[in-house]
Order: sequence, then C-alpha cells, then structure tokens
Amino acid sequence: MTTEKQTQGTVTVLRHKSEILKNNPLGDKFIRDVCVYLPPGYEENTQKFPVIYCLTGFTGRGKMLLNDNAFVPNMAERIDRLISENKIKPMIVVMPDCFTFYGGSQYINSSATGDYEDYLTAEIVPFVDANFRTITDKNSRAVMGKSSGGYGALIMATRHADIFGLACSTSGDAYFEFCYLPDFAKAFRAIKGNPQKLVEKFWDEEANKGKDDFAGLNVIGMSACYSPNPMSELGFDLPFDLETGEIRFDVWEKWLAHDPVRLVEKSAENLRSLKLLYIDAGTRDEFALDLGARILCKKLREFDIPHLHEEFDDGHMQISYRYNRSLELISQTFERQF
Amino acid sequence: MTTEKQTQGTVTVLRHKSEILKNNPLGDKFIRDVCVYLPPGYEENTQKFPVIYCLTGFTGRGKMLLNDNAFVPNMAERIDRLISENKIKPMIVVMPDCFTFYGGSQYINSSATGDYEDYLTAEIVPFVDANFRTITDKNSRAVMGKSSGGYGALIMATRHADIFGLACSTSGDAYFEFCYLPDFAKAFRAIKGNPQKLVEKFWDEEANKGKDDFAGLNVIGMSACYSPNPMSELGFDLPFDLETGEIRFDVWEKWLAHDPVRLVEKSAENLRSLKLLYIDAGTRDEFALDLGARILCKKLREFDIPHLHEEFDDGHMQISYRYNRSLELISQTFERQF
Amino acid sequence: MTTEKQTQGTVTVLRHKSEILKNNPLGDKFIRDVCVYLPPGYEENTQKFPVIYCLTGFTGRGKMLLNDNAFVPNMAERIDRLISENKIKPMIVVMPDCFTFYGGSQYINSSATGDYEDYLTAEIVPFVDANFRTITDKNSRAVMGKSSGGYGALIMATRHADIFGLACSTSGDAYFEFCYLPDFAKAFRAIKGNPQKLVEKFWDEEANKGKDDFAGLNVIGMSACYSPNPMSELGFDLPFDLETGEIRFDVWEKWLAHDPVRLVEKSAENLRSLKLLYIDAGTRDEFALDLGARILCKKLREFDIPHLHEEFDDGHMQISYRYNRSLELISQTFERQF
Amino acid sequence: MTTEKQTQGTVTVLRHKSEILKNNPLGDKFIRDVCVYLPPGYEENTQKFPVIYCLTGFTGRGKMLLNDNAFVPNMAERIDRLISENKIKPMIVVMPDCFTFYGGSQYINSSATGDYEDYLTAEIVPFVDANFRTITDKNSRAVMGKSSGGYGALIMATRHADIFGLACSTSGDAYFEFCYLPDFAKAFRAIKGNPQKLVEKFWDEEANKGKDDFAGLNVIGMSACYSPNPMSELGFDLPFDLETGEIRFDVWEKWLAHDPVRLVEKSAENLRSLKLLYIDAGTRDEFALDLGARILCKKLREFDIPHLHEEFDDGHMQISYRYNRSLELISQTFERQF
Repeated sequence: MTTEKQTQGTVTVLRHKSEILKNNPLGDKFIRDVCVYLPPGYEENTQKFPVIYCLTGFTGRGKMLLNDNAFVPNMAERIDRLISENKIKPMIVVMPDCFTFYGGSQYINSSATGDYEDYLTAEIVPFVDANFRTITDKNSRAVMGKSSGGYGALIMATRHADIFGLACSTSGDAYFEFCYLPDFAKAFRAIKGNPQKLVEKFWDEEANKGKDDFAGLNVIGMSACYSPNPMSELGFDLPFDLETGEIRFDVWEKWLAHDPVRLVEKSAENLRSLKLLYIDAGTRDEFALDLGARILCKKLREFDIPHLHEEFDDGHMQISYRYNRSLELISQTFERQF
Repeated sequence: MTTEKQTQGTVTVLRHKSEILKNNPLGDKFIRDVCVYLPPGYEENTQKFPVIYCLTGFTGRGKMLLNDNAFVPNMAERIDRLISENKIKPMIVVMPDCFTFYGGSQYINSSATGDYEDYLTAEIVPFVDANFRTITDKNSRAVMGKSSGGYGALIMATRHADIFGLACSTSGDAYFEFCYLPDFAKAFRAIKGNPQKLVEKFWDEEANKGKDDFAGLNVIGMSACYSPNPMSELGFDLPFDLETGEIRFDVWEKWLAHDPVRLVEKSAENLRSLKLLYIDAGTRDEFALDLGARILCKKLREFDIPHLHEEFDDGHMQISYRYNRSLELISQTFERQF
Repeated sequence: MTTEKQTQGTVTVLRHKSEILKNNPLGDKFIRDVCVYLPPGYEENTQKFPVIYCLTGFTGRGKMLLNDNAFVPNMAERIDRLISENKIKPMIVVMPDCFTFYGGSQYINSSATGDYEDYLTAEIVPFVDANFRTITDKNSRAVMGKSSGGYGALIMATRHADIFGLACSTSGDAYFEFCYLPDFAKAFRAIKGNPQKLVEKFWDEEANKGKDDFAGLNVIGMSACYSPNPMSELGFDLPFDLETGEIRFDVWEKWLAHDPVRLVEKSAENLRSLKLLYIDAGTRDEFALDLGARILCKKLREFDIPHLHEEFDDGHMQISYRYNRSLELISQTFERQF
Repeated sequence: MTTEKQTQGTVTVLRHKSEILKNNPLGDKFIRDVCVYLPPGYEENTQKFPVIYCLTGFTGRGKMLLNDNAFVPNMAERIDRLISENKIKPMIVVMPDCFTFYGGSQYINSSATGDYEDYLTAEIVPFVDANFRTITDKNSRAVMGKSSGGYGALIMATRHADIFGLACSTSGDAYFEFCYLPDFAKAFRAIKGNPQKLVEKFWDEEANKGKDDFAGLNVIGMSACYSPNPMSELGFDLPFDLETGEIRFDVWEKWLAHDPVRLVEKSAENLRSLKLLYIDAGTRDEFALDLGARILCKKLREFDIPHLHEEFDDGHMQISYRYNRSLELISQTFERQF
C-alpha cells in the first residue's frame, strides 16, 4: 500500500544573487536557487529553529535533494517523516547549489571554478539567517552531506567551525590515494588528450557516454578544485601527463593538500571544538571511502578529536536512508545544548 | 558554462480525487497529483492548445519527469527549450501518476492493482479538458512514453484511438519472449518463494537490494497487471512455479495476450486510424526492445498500418534526449491538421 | 607449500580413425586423440577395471581435461588423489574428443555436424574395450560430464542405458527456455545476419571477440546440433529470424525435442534401469541450470525414476571440484555391484 | 573445418633438481619440470639452435603454455605453425616453472619465496645448454613473456643482459602506481586481516572465491616478492595497514624499487647492450599496463635506449596471439646476427 504521504513542512525556493560568484571563471550562473525546508508550524508561530545545511555530491545541486522517487522519500519527505515520528525536532534544512560546469566545486575556493567556500560561508549562511527565523549560534548550525557533500561538510568542519558547530560526513571523499588515484587510468583513457571535449560530452545529452567517461569528468572536476593553475590553458592542471598517463607528482601533492586526512593536523583545534563530528561509510564503497573513513578516524584519534565513526553494509549509491542517522545525531546534539 | 535556463512555461500540480481508484485492491492512494505543463503565454491569452500525455516507465510516476538533473533538462525544461528553439509549437503536457504498490500499472485494468486504463481515459483526460484550455479533438491529443510508458502509449493506441490520435513509444515493452522471459530465472532467485517479502524490501529503504531484486519486482509487477487472479492468495499468478521455476504456460499465455505484437491484429483498425504512430528503440537495449520494436513493426507492415520506426545507438537508460524526436513528430502532426 | 604431486596413474593417448566421422559435413578431422587414464598398477597385473567416460562442455575436448593448473588438479591428478585417499577405487577414465568447427556436438547425431552419438557409442566404446582391460558390463561403465558434457551424459542415459549403466550430469543443459532462449537477443546481435562470419571470428585468434559473441557461437552450435536442415544454406536453421530476431517456433520446437526435460517420458524405462543417475547444479548458475535440474528432477519423480539431486552454492564456472562427488558416487555404485 | 594440426616439433619434459630452491622458505618443491620445445628436425641432425625462454604470468608455470585449447594454438603448436609458415626459423623454446605457494616469484630473489632469479639464470640456463644443442651466445638467447612473465623478461634485460641478449615484454608489469595500487582497497577487503587464510582459499578448490580475492592474492604474491621481511611473521610486509588500509609508504617504496620504470636509470648500460627490446600492451589493459608501457618507453627514450614499442586494441586476457609478434621479432634478430 502506498500511503498518502502527508507533507507537513514546506519547501521555499529563494533566488539569491551572489557577488562572490559574479564573474566566476566558468561563466556559471551567479543567481541561484536556495532551497529551504521549513518545518511544520513555521508559519504559525515565531519560534526560531536550528539549521542544517545539506550539501550534495559531485554532479549534484540542492534542488536534486527534492527529486521525487516513488519508493524512497526525498529530503523534505524524510524530514517530515522523522519529525512526525518524533525522531528529530523541527528544524530548517538548507540545500544550496554549488554546482559548476565541471560538475561541482567541492565547496572550496578555486581560481578555476569560483570561490564556493566563500559563497557558502559568507553569502548563503547570512542570507538564510536574514530570511528565516534561524538560531544563529554555531552550535545550532550543522552541515552534512554525502560523497563530495560529505567532503564539503569536513571542509566546513576544518576551516569554519566558527560557523558550523556540527558536521556529518556520509561517505565523504577522503584518502585520495584510494578514492581518486585508482581512476586515473580510466580518466586518462576517457579524456583522450582533450579534457574540454570530454566535459562537453556531458553537456550534450545526445552524446554517448562511455563507461570510463564519468571517471574522466570526476578527475577533471577535482583538478579544477584541487590544482587550479591560472597560468595553464584550462585554468587547472591534471594530475597526469596527457601523453603517457604518468602521474605529475607536483600536481598530485596539491591534491593531497586538500585531503581531509592531511587537514586534521592543522585543523585539530577547530575539529576539537565541534559539538558533533560524525563520519560514516559503507563497507562496499566503490571509491573505498570506508577505508578513507577509517584512516581519517585514526588521524582524529591521534589528535584526540572526539568523533563518531560508523560503518554500514552497503556501497556508495542509493544510501540516502543513511541521512537519517546524521539527522538524528544532529537533532540530539542540538537538543542537548538547549 | 551553465547558462541560466529561462523557464518560460509553468508547471501546475492539480490534485485529482479518483472514483475509479477508490477502493483499489492494493490500498494505493486515490487522490493523486496530476502534473501539467502549460506553455509560455498560456495565462495571457485565451488560445486553446493541443495536449500530450506523457507516461512514465515502471517504478515511475508523472512527477518524476520534473526531477532536476544538472546536466539534462527535465520534461518542462525540455519543452521550454524546444518551444523557444521553435522546434515544437506551444502545447500542454500532462504527466499522470499511475504508480502502484507493485511499481506500476502498465496503464491497463487489473483486478490485482486497479483500473488504471479507465482511470487515465475516463477520468484524467476529461479532468484535464475540464481544467485547461485544451483542444479536445483526438487528433490534438497525443500519448507518449518510455519503456512501460511506451507500452502504455501502445495500449492507448490499440484500444483508445478515439481518444488519442497520436502515439509514440520510446523503447516500449514488446515481444515478451525477449523483454520479460529472460529475467524469469533471476526473478525466481530474487523472489525466493515469497513475492510479498521481496516487494516489501523495495518499500524499506534500509534493506539491501540484491542484483536480481529488480528483475523480481518487475516480474511481480507485470504479473499483477497481466495475470491477475482474484482466486489466488496474492491476487495474481506468477508465470513460473515457485519451487522449480518451471514456466506456467497457462499464465504465460495470459501475459502474451497483452503483448503489443499480439494486439496488432485485433486492433488493426484503431491503429490505422492514428495520425501518428512512432516506435523507436536503442540497438543496445538491455531488454532487447529493439528486437521487440522490429517484430512489432513487421506486424504493423503485415496489416498495412502506417508507422514510423527508428533505431538509436544506445541502450534503455538515460535516453530522455529521445523524447525530443517524439515531441517534434507530434508537434508536426498537430500542425499538419490545423 | 606446493607439495610434490605424485602422479600414480598414467595417461595414454590413442589415435582413433573413425569411420563414422569420415566425410563429416564440416570437414572436421576424423582421426582423433582418445585420452585414457589408467590407474596405478594397471601395467603390473591383469585385473580388469570399470570405466568412466568423461565428456567435456561446449568448446571443449577430452584433452583439455588434462590441462595444467597450478592450483587445481586436472582430471588425472584428481583421480590419482581420490584413489590414493581411498575415496574411489582404481578405474579407467576415457576422455573422448567430440569437438566440431561450431564448438561441439552435444554428443548427438546431426546432419549438420556429424554422428557423434554413434561415434561415441558405436566406435569409441568398443575401441576402448578392445584396447584396455575394461569390465565390459554396462554396470561397470559410467558416463559423466559438465555443462554440455552433462547434457551428453543425460543423452547417453536416455538412449544408451544398455551401454552406460551409470550417469552423472554436472550442470548439464536442461530446460532450454532458461538455458538457451535468454541468450537469443545477444546471439542475434553478435551474429549480425552472418552466422558463418561469427564462427570464423573464433577461429581467428587475432579477431577481437565482443561480449555477446560467445552467446552467438553457442546458439549457432546448438542450432547445428538441434535443428539441422540439409535443405538450408548453412545446413541448419537458427531459432530466430535474422532480420527481426523473432523466434521461429517451428525451429524452436525441434530444439525442445532435445531437451532432457522432454526426453524423460519417452525414455523412462531406460532411465529407470540405471544403477546411478546423479544430477547437480550450482544455485548461481549463469545459465539457470539449477532450475533446469530442479525441473528435470521433478519430471523424474513424476515417472518414478530413481535419482540423486544436489545443489551447490556456486555458478557455472570453475567447478571441477564437483567432479569429485560424481566420481565418488560412481565408484560406490561400481563397488556395490561386485 | 578443424584441420589436422600436424605437430612437427617435439616437447620434452626434463626433471631438474635445484640446489638453489632446496630449502626454499615456502617448502615449495625443488624438483621441477622444465618443458622444452625442440624444433622439427632436431633429432635428425647436429645443428645448434638459438633459444627462447618463455616466462608465464602470475599463477602460471611453464607447463601451462602447453595447455590445449580447441580454438587457439598452444605454445608448441604456435611455434610449429610459425616455423612451417616460414615466419620464424627453427629454435628451441624453454618453459620454466617459477611458481610458488603465493602464486609466483616475479622471477626475482626474495627471502620470502626463494631465489628464483638465481634459479633461472644460474641453474636453468646452464641446465638447458648442457642438455640440448643450443647456441650459447647471449645474442642467440632471448627471454619473453606475458604479464608477470613480461616483467620477468624486463628483469632479465636489466640485470642479466650478459645472459639474455634479447627481451620481449607482452603487457609486462610496470608503473606500479597504476598496475598494483588501484587494487589495494580490493585486496584489503579480500584479505580481511588474514593473508594466510586468503592464500589457503586458493589451495582449497571447494572454497568459494569472492570477486576481490584475486586482487588479494596478487597483492600478497607481490609483497612476498617485493617487500620480504625476515623479521615479520609472514616473512614479508604488506603495503597497507591491516586495520585501516592506510598505505605503508616505507613498504611501498620497497615495491617501487622493483618497478621497471625505476630500474631503467641504473640498468641503462645493460639495456643498451640488448639486440632487441620489445615492449607491447593492449590499450584496454585491465591493469593499465598500456600506460605502464608508455611511461617505461618514455624513460627508455630519456636514456637513449633503443627499443620497439607497440600497442594493440585489446585487454590483458586471451592475447596469446601477440606472442607471434615477439617470436617473429626475436627470430629476425637472431637471423641478423648469423
């Protein structure tokens, strides 16, 4: 029986005009939708609510969290359900759009894509606080996400713990030796010496995508974020030679500098200040992010950073049910503080 | 560069309360959303528009045609783009919801699921005509869809040519010996003697889905549509024995009676009356629907039924770009008549 | 530690010149190697031994049972080991060659390939009995095999129970609706209208084989065995139309007449006379032969034919360890009779 | 038509008792078969012949090059054919056995497996020269092989150019960042903290092998060769932590020291002395050995080392047809010298 799902909260879509993204190097749009879930009862009273920022994975943007699926609830339906089942308290959920021509921004600043880290922290957070009845204390503001969205949550945790006091990473990118490097050969083959051409294939819906093409796009997208180079033709460096595939270790080092595993040491104080740091992964993750999570958590232990680490018996895809765990932990942490 | 997609038309979602689906055997909801795309300018004038009904595949429902994808336009964005590029004329597009607990209805009546053929033809079409400025002539009303939606379009073409004067099937289910039977062994293994339990797995987002589970759901869903049996425990018969997997040929014959290939002869007059009958498929279709289309078109030729048959170099998935062809053909056919 | 495998038995290869295969329609060689394993001690005394005929699968021939694999014993090493571990009694094992240009013969007579059923029963068996100290009683002569070799064993059991008193089928072809029909669409695509050309690809080691090519060869091979047609260009009929893929049900019926499931009724008396009829399969068999085995065994029960049915948790490949079970059962049955 | 393959040469199997492998740490056998192909006419005259040593890949041993395949010639049949087609001159081909409990030796010395580099160069070569009418000049002695056998050929070329004056690597292991590292996560999962147990699974033919198990065996095997450690429990170090999967960079550096790409510089003089250095790979190689070959050849160019580099449109498996190219090049080079 497919029951009537009674949507209790409401979703509002605000258009935000960004100063930071204006003139971004890719010509990507700077007026973007910010999707905001408001809990049931939001309109009727004057209560303030804690806020969660939910970040999407590579090739995603906030709006996609609201896509319809007949079997599985979208983010708004999920929150509604958890609230109505009393598993979480009413809260506001923000779904920002940090997508780019290359597929994503990793929620960091880059001369090759734009300053999405600033966009999120310096524009979207104030914009949300200005437009909705949010509790503006950092400990009532969480960030969560899956895959590159989990990575984004970790970035916020390491560098913006003054803004986000809670962070949950679901299968977030970590330990780049395992989550990216094994795809270099596939990416090399997909790119065939011409990165631009491969990206354009993704923008041409009629173009046949080969089995390695996504690996190619992913490496290009990550290069634009991790190894921008204003001096180069594309605006970024690829981590391998386009003739032989040989790893360019100087570029690779730039990537590694963005690996959460390597960010722990210099961000230890920030990370220690968090009220919640939750890291999960599936033990069959196709990008070995379960190993990434283990290695990251080992580093966290080395630096005495409190955190919660969980593993699930699944892979990297179709795991939105795991948002429940993050949402419940965040809600409990919010509660503890009041 | 991700350009500003200027949405010109508007999407309206009406809630329709069905008399036909009331008391449906699965307890599925009978108040359903009907998503309707209205072309740019609809509000400003009093013009009437032709209408397309777009049917979704198995496990889909109308709303999903509006899901966001960063790289590929959804149905509304697609229509907007085609209109603005002057490739199609302004039209209304209706996206109905014929989903069921078992994943779909194949747009036919069944004692096991409900009377979705009647729902669509006797309730939704009049409801749309009553609520929007449609041209109500059959030759200004088309039906199209992909996969099971293409099958639905073929069903409308064979039995309701008085309502829909144009029909386009994109990789529609046909020649059941190739599109369903090869999955029986997988389905047998996934069902493990308990169809109900397998279906429930799909309704439990935390349940791990095995690689054959979808084949199992598909066979169950088709059984509910093609071989309902009010006398049986489940309300329908599976086409194989649950102990050995042996095909139950009496049940299989009931399925075959619904195969478009077999419906041609008895529906020849209806099919001949269509202003457009378009059938396509990809030559790598995972369900061999390209062969289904070839065999179907051979039958159409045998009965002198005008039709257009095209093949594409792709498979069964991520082929929404092929909607363009249907939309353009429909628009041209609409035009020719005015 | 890789221990010294002490080969105790000996392998003799006799060249047999066949009258039956002379002038076979494919021009395949008629002088063939017959590989024979003789148990330890064979040379030293005058004892007579029971005999097993081990038949290979499609694309195989007897000699391949003796191929070296560093991890897994070949047939001679396996027999040696089982004898030395006292799990089986000393016996002679014959590995005949019934390979053809199309990949195999299914051990039956066909105007398109040659009379391999006669070759095996009327030439090879007498030849072996004439050249080795065999016990010539049918109850001291077993036939076993895997895949198409298991099918061959079932054929011998149904039609030559006077020659072979014991038969073991390991994942033998059965229930053609599941083991062959699901590959028709793949085969259609691989054949691309030209069966001869596809076969030649297999004889050209430099030709790139596509992923569906084996399915194509398999269907061609089976057609040559099951639906020979001296009137046709190729000498046999394919079970589908080369333009549309539509099943040719008249040809398909010829195939089905060779399905072990359908042979039970008319061969019931023969089958009942066997001293051992063993049927196994893996529950993940890629050709659904576990279902084939279940359906076959259900028929055997219907006709009160004694048999042993076992299932293993594996697939269709790399299952030579399962020969052990057949060999042990055969040895025990031989013993019971003496 | 399967023609009578007229085997013209003969295969002799000599048993060689090794002093070097005696007391090897794994207890692997030290009396091993050396398979030797002697060209047609060898017996009739007193001519001396040049010699090729053909090395097998991981999990292989010389005898396996003689395995029967109905469609594809084995090594002896291949040589026969090439000689009879006058594509190569008569020669002796030696197929040694350097297999170990862990699946292979990479043809190098290791305290964890045994001194297989010495075994091959100091025992087998003299043994062959003593037992057959070989031309003992280094320029009449070639080494070739596929995969790990190609790696072995490269090792001989870098360190034993005084023995082997010609070397051909078919898809030989090179650039370990691409051919090994991407499998570490799979290997980690397959090993499950217990390397010994995984290896034993390969020695138990009844054990179900999981999809990642081969990656696990491969990493264990390479560890035994590249990072032996007499102080450790297993006798070698794995390149990752068994708890988290984190790469042990100290161990990884030991591996890299064995990478052909890194051996070029220190072996430049040896490599330059070769009469033939041939390197090929398939552009779809599953271990990215085409990139390995490109990178290796770039290094060779940097050090002005003459070589021939070719690419084929295939993968890593079923490529024995590519032996033809090596054999022809070797034969031509042998010829040029006489």
